[in-house]
Amino acid sequence: MAVNYTLPTPESLLPVAGVTLGYAKAHVRKPDRKDMLVIALEPGSLAAGVFTQNRFCAAPVLVCREHLKHGSDMRALVINTGCANAGTGDRGLADARATCAEVGKTLGVAPHQVLPFSTGVILEHLPMERILAGIPQCKANLTATGWFDAAHAIMTTDTVPKGASRQIDIHGHKITVTGISKGAGMIEPNMATMLGFIATDAVVGDDVLQDMVRAAADVSFNAITVDGDTSTNDSLILMATGKAGNPPINGEGTAEYAKLQDAVNEVAIALAQAIVRDGEGATKFMTVRVEGGKTREECLKIGKAIANSPLVKTAFFASDPNLGRILAAIGYAGVADLDTEKLKMYLGAVLVAENGGRAASYKEELGAAVMKESEILVRVELGRGVEHATVWTCDFSYDYVKINADYRS
Amino acid sequence: MAVNYTLPTPESLLPVAGVTLGYAKAHVRKPDRKDMLVIALEPGSLAAGVFTQNRFCAAPVLVCREHLKHGSDMRALVINTGCANAGTGDRGLADARATCAEVGKTLGVAPHQVLPFSTGVILEHLPMERILAGIPQCKANLTATGWFDAAHAIMTTDTVPKGASRQIDIHGHKITVTGISKGAGMIEPNMATMLGFIATDAVVGDDVLQDMVRAAADVSFNAITVDGDTSTNDSLILMATGKAGNPPINGEGTAEYAKLQDAVNEVAIALAQAIVRDGEGATKFMTVRVEGGKTREECLKIGKAIANSPLVKTAFFASDPNLGRILAAIGYAGVADLDTEKLKMYLGAVLVAENGGRAASYKEELGAAVMKESEILVRVELGRGVEHATVWTCDFSYDYVKINADYRS
Repeated sequence: MAVNYTLPTPESLLPVAGVTLGYAKAHVRKPDRKDMLVIALEPGSLAAGVFTQNRFCAAPVLVCREHLKHGSDMRALVINTGCANAGTGDRGLADARATCAEVGKTLGVAPHQVLPFSTGVILEHLPMERILAGIPQCKANLTATGWFDAAHAIMTTDTVPKGASRQIDIHGHKITVTGISKGAGMIEPNMATMLGFIATDAVVGDDVLQDMVRAAADVSFNAITVDGDTSTNDSLILMATGKAGNPPINGEGTAEYAKLQDAVNEVAIALAQAIVRDGEGATKFMTVRVEGGKTREECLKIGKAIANSPLVKTAFFASDPNLGRILAAIGYAGVADLDTEKLKMYLGAVLVAENGGRAASYKEELGAAVMKESEILVRVELGRGVEHATVWTCDFSYDYVKINADYRS
Repeated sequence: MAVNYTLPTPESLLPVAGVTLGYAKAHVRKPDRKDMLVIALEPGSLAAGVFTQNRFCAAPVLVCREHLKHGSDMRALVINTGCANAGTGDRGLADARATCAEVGKTLGVAPHQVLPFSTGVILEHLPMERILAGIPQCKANLTATGWFDAAHAIMTTDTVPKGASRQIDIHGHKITVTGISKGAGMIEPNMATMLGFIATDAVVGDDVLQDMVRAAADVSFNAITVDGDTSTNDSLILMATGKAGNPPINGEGTAEYAKLQDAVNEVAIALAQAIVRDGEGATKFMTVRVEGGKTREECLKIGKAIANSPLVKTAFFASDPNLGRILAAIGYAGVADLDTEKLKMYLGAVLVAENGGRAASYKEELGAAVMKESEILVRVELGRGVEHATVWTCDFSYDYVKINADYRS
């Protein structure tokens, strides 16, 4: 069960004007479960996305990139679980295109106005007959209040549905931002993918969404790690229907832009943290904050080295203040001119290390008390600049191995 | 117990003329176990080393680097287990220096002719009274046949002692290369360090050893990974006593140089593979060979990405041919212009993937049969050049978590 996680409710996921959602039980991999989703957007909607950097990116990722280049009038997203359509060569591409064509035909829009997403087993082909049969089912139950069911329809080994909403006011216009995500690892057990979908009814200029989704990804999905494995299908999409009636938001640097970006970031961070809280086998949620760096990149490097170390993660699982492991991870993170004499490391409020070694005030029982918590802050002060970065991760338990070793047995 | 590992015997570890070894039961951390070692070298011996790149490198590593700069007439090595003397600041440095001074006094050599090594808990200070008391014990049992006991005296959580010997003939002179190592992870449970010590009686020129130890490290210790964590104390030392009477071996490019380098590499590879076979919780030994790269570096990057992926390692533990995980790791290894269409991936002799997807000839039962073995070869052909690299690793089991989560309870 996810660590300290508040389940979304049908009421907590607010409709976004111009967006309807419909699911199907298409039996992609397992019978009688919600496993397909169509998100329909009213005419004039914009969408932008960021995608996996994995060279083995999946067929739907390639098709998404292609369709997003086509232009701005995006009308639908189609998502299936159970099969990632990754490592599937030319046939995989043809299947992703055929899915878009069928959704287009069903909704009366062009195929390139449809974005496809898949999550599930790598190296297997989509069961196209069942996928195509699912599309009219999705259409039949399209509804503006469908976010809660949608959050369920994109789950694979997730133990909880993930969704969040925020509302802001811009010049008297109420603007809603709602998103859903899935993932219980950067790669889940044989189920490859993190997916995130965020929609707003704000009116925004053509170029705004791409900047906004990239900025949101950097502080949310790009700041989490469960096992350091980057999936073949990771996708985060930001959509804007323009139905809120606000004066258009254009370009960075305005108060309105900042307000919308903040709301999008908040939803993205909530969705990303939900993935870590639901991380495979997770029993604890850790925030690793690295401060005082020369660049944000070096802070992120050190944060990720700590958050990805199996030794650090098993120590957290054991509630064992074996904190030399964190120093070792800082040391091998790849910051070549790091001065370990200047560095300070804190566990919660407890100073653990300074001047290249154990702090004089540190006592094991102080560390042990912090390690017993289920929410733990590791803070590193590098003492060489003003940049910082935050990474969220979970611990590494027997159940991680169990989930990843046993799933097909 | 280590995977398919042949234990060394007292007879299999051949004496090296000019080298004697003596251990002590110094009670560094636990009573009544061999936990200190002195390796004594006759006058005129040379030594060279490669050390951890971790910025939090331990005090003995700093002192080793310092003493190796002093010159070539190295006379002793002193090693303790139980405490890594890492993250110990100025006091740690003073302790390492005091240890060298005491060994020097005991053996009648200068402190800078002594190299110190420590392995064990990070963030704790050496118990200097017991360390100093151990030195005369070590001296009292110095013997040329001490390699087998020495291999035991440097163990921490290793389940087996690690040692190897080779003999070569150069112009009628028999030359011996013998080495010992320790480590059951790049970082072991709270016990930080890989240590390797290799000695030869060959006569070599002044500049030879540094090149030779670096080349040996690249194809052996730098090609293994258990958990991707680089320790604060990793050290590999190559010593040459010059007692074999061969014509001096100088510089690269001669047949004699190549012959000695091969023997040193073979010993280093045997020692490095022994560490993987004894990897924490290991049940399988995997060889990852990446061929057809533009550079050795990119082959190594891909090999390490596969070998370090928790998802790949848990799949091997489960004997589950979940091979999309290997493709995903190849894809995120960071080779930016990798063409996945040209790549081929084999499991043993079975072609698994080509043309960007599953090979037409691949059947799950073929993969499953290979996965059942305890020695498995993963081979990747990149199809973009002639370089290659090999990485050795082990699987990731419940026992890895158990060992790393439970050690202090």
